[in-house]
Amino acid sequence: MKQIDVNAGKPYPVKIGRGLLPCCGAELKGIGLSGKVMIVTDDNVAPLYLATAEASLKNSGFTVFSFTLPHGENAKNFDNLVKLLNFTAESGLTRSDTFVALGGGVVGDLCGFAAAVYMRGVHFVQCPTTLLAAVDSSVGGKTAVDLAAGKNLAGAFYQPDLVLCDLDTFATLPREEYANGMAEVIKYGFIRDAQLLAVLEQAFDEEAVVACCVQIKADVVANDEFDRGERMLLNFGHTVGHAIEAVSGYTIPHGQAVALGMAAVTRACVKNGLCPPETLSILLRLLARYDLPNETGRAVNELFGWMGKDKKASGDSITFVLPRETGRCELRKMTRAEWTALLS
Amino acid sequence: MKQIDVNAGKPYPVKIGRGLLPCCGAELKGIGLSGKVMIVTDDNVAPLYLATAEASLKNSGFTVFSFTLPHGENAKNFDNLVKLLNFTAESGLTRSDTFVALGGGVVGDLCGFAAAVYMRGVHFVQCPTTLLAAVDSSVGGKTAVDLAAGKNLAGAFYQPDLVLCDLDTFATLPREEYANGMAEVIKYGFIRDAQLLAVLEQAFDEEAVVACCVQIKADVVANDEFDRGERMLLNFGHTVGHAIEAVSGYTIPHGQAVALGMAAVTRACVKNGLCPPETLSILLRLLARYDLPNETGRAVNELFGWMGKDKKASGDSITFVLPRETGRCELRKMTRAEWTALLS
Repeated sequence: MKQIDVNAGKPYPVKIGRGLLPCCGAELKGIGLSGKVMIVTDDNVAPLYLATAEASLKNSGFTVFSFTLPHGENAKNFDNLVKLLNFTAESGLTRSDTFVALGGGVVGDLCGFAAAVYMRGVHFVQCPTTLLAAVDSSVGGKTAVDLAAGKNLAGAFYQPDLVLCDLDTFATLPREEYANGMAEVIKYGFIRDAQLLAVLEQAFDEEAVVACCVQIKADVVANDEFDRGERMLLNFGHTVGHAIEAVSGYTIPHGQAVALGMAAVTRACVKNGLCPPETLSILLRLLARYDLPNETGRAVNELFGWMGKDKKASGDSITFVLPRETGRCELRKMTRAEWTALLS
Repeated sequence: MKQIDVNAGKPYPVKIGRGLLPCCGAELKGIGLSGKVMIVTDDNVAPLYLATAEASLKNSGFTVFSFTLPHGENAKNFDNLVKLLNFTAESGLTRSDTFVALGGGVVGDLCGFAAAVYMRGVHFVQCPTTLLAAVDSSVGGKTAVDLAAGKNLAGAFYQPDLVLCDLDTFATLPREEYANGMAEVIKYGFIRDAQLLAVLEQAFDEEAVVACCVQIKADVVANDEFDRGERMLLNFGHTVGHAIEAVSGYTIPHGQAVALGMAAVTRACVKNGLCPPETLSILLRLLARYDLPNETGRAVNELFGWMGKDKKASGDSITFVLPRETGRCELRKMTRAEWTALLS
């Protein structure tokens, strides 16, 4: 088991290892929680892990309720948030009680937003069951739901009290879902750690790689919790990626979209002499190794309309993350004319 | 004009005076804001002050949008929040843009919550147009909407960048609405400032009294932004008051309910020897002077069911605010059995 401490405004531990979910009750108790727990999960995860989590929590003296979302990005909306909040109020949770997110990024984002706003904030524990959630969305406190106009347009910065990442739960991940997580793992190598990229070219130890990614995220978040500077580095591939997801009507999953976004931006940077061709070769090799795509099959300029609506937009500019070499990216605030020229 | 600086996590000025709304554009520009503004108001306030605010903002170079809610507590719900957020996204507001709340407590609470969650937080300016909002809800960063299960059950702590309180707007307040604000003014005297109570027994200077209340609130919020201790003092009369509002189906306005709550708790404290009878006499005299009720006309035990659901409940206990003498209240965490015995 590895533990990484995130020094955000509210510090908290991320525990990464095997066999953690069957002990989740003791872990919550260990950080001083008690009373009622609302487990939020989805209909893929519930049959696999809900009973395990419930039993452990009850065993540690918690009163347990659960709320199961339909799986998939379409569930991450205000309708489900309000249903969850009403059910939580009916279940009598008070300010001293706890939400537990048991699932992937959609579950964690919606449950975290509910925890952030229910009575203006209650306790919150993340139990990510996907590689994507483990290395990315469960750490750092970004919570949200989608609006018709775009993904994650309403949300809160709200740090959890604890992240409990049980690697055993990845065993039931479909191959494509695991690949989605690898897109974010590869991202961490490109923005901060060329050594991680070398590790990924071979068979690797899951615990060590997840811990490496979480450590990078923890470092970035500790420096810039509210995403005004360094934290934007984590958006490498995401501005183009979000536009790809949106244009596809969210039929292309997040990890694949990020892979396509990283490939598009890296190609553009090589073409414009901003990074060496080897950086692109390494990226394309890793994407291929982990079953990730690198060609959108559509003209990049189809995406420009959506990109202007990105949350990272500020006035008429967007801050892009540009790869300069493996392990180093830079932030560059670009006008529409500038990013159109770069990417076209 | 008086200025009070609130030293919350994010410090900001509260400006109190006359003729401020026609200059609001310059005031926003003065604190470094620019770009797009979404004014949120209601259908009572819009015909009176929206054009003035819009003209001033446009004159200072802002692009202005507006969203008008129906008036009244019933409008403070997720349906209207989501409509506002979608309209804001369609209007193209980005992270560097601003929400302006122009109205009373309902407008400020809902608009503030929208500002807190839109893209995980954008700029926010409060322009209270009621006495109640000026002395209470516009300062301190509590934002919320109601759930079916109760008032303010979903929200955020989100401080504004600026509060601009134009006393001229109180001229159009209905008498009952002004009285609602006076209930909160009287509350400040009881929890912190016996001298203020003496002032209120005569004709008073509005600017000085509003500034006095805002200063008390600023002091309390600076010590306890997230409502875990001292800030709960501001709930004097509110636990019983919220139950009265709920039982009435929100037909009894907030200020009247708080007046009834203060009277009920003070009577109980006198009866139980916790505070001198003069404290109750002063309270009843001031409530009468400002057209506020002091008798609920219903048995207090009808309210107990609702009180257990209060946000201030934690597990099975509620922290009550008990008057000990004029200008001094204390917090006491009580079990259901204890508060039932006190209030019955």
